Amino acid sequence: MVTEIAQIKVIAGREKAFEEAVAQAAPHFQAAKGYISLNLEKCIEDPSIYRLVVEWETLDNHMVDFRDSEGFAAWRALASPHFAEPPQVVHTENVFKAV
Amino acid sequence: MVTEIAQIKVIAGREKAFEEAVAQAAPHFQAAKGYISLNLEKCIEDPSIYRLVVEWETLDNHMVDFRDSEGFAAWRALASPHFAEPPQVVHTENVFKAV
Repeated sequence: MVTEIAQIKVIAGREKAFEEAVAQAAPHFQAAKGYISLNLEKCIEDPSIYRLVVEWETLDNHMVDFRDSEGFAAWRALASPHFAEPPQVVHTENVFKAV
Repeated sequence: MVTEIAQIKVIAGREKAFEEAVAQAAPHFQAAKGYISLNLEKCIEDPSIYRLVVEWETLDNHMVDFRDSEGFAAWRALASPHFAEPPQVVHTENVFKAV
């Protein structure tokens, strides 16, 4: 499993509209090959900064299958009007966990 | 619930030692007031960068209760020798989730 973390800075005043766009776009992620889950996190220290956290079965499920899909185009069409700058995307894998 | 995300850049070659230090330090988090869970994520694009993701019941459970505790001092004593630079810490709260 691979976690995509997209840091997204939203235009000031567009926070609620962006959150609604993510909810509206969720089915495009849910329909994607290898999709596991999606969380939208809002930064407490800077409320115009979000982290979209998407779990995928493999890195290619995000970078190839999803990026080349109509679902990705639909997601970007909904969300990108609210972006203050291009998202910064990294991927992580878990190396330790505790509860 | 609040999520602490500490981005930690580790000195090159110290990755495994850092991962072991986190595992060794886990009980200090687990004993802390308001602790929920801990995940250590390794960045695929830059394997010397980690994200320590800790869920807390409240922001103060991290910033006051834990930061002022002996557990925090013990965690930093174990992990900080491997830090290449000071960790960058932010907190987030969930605003949307989908599975």
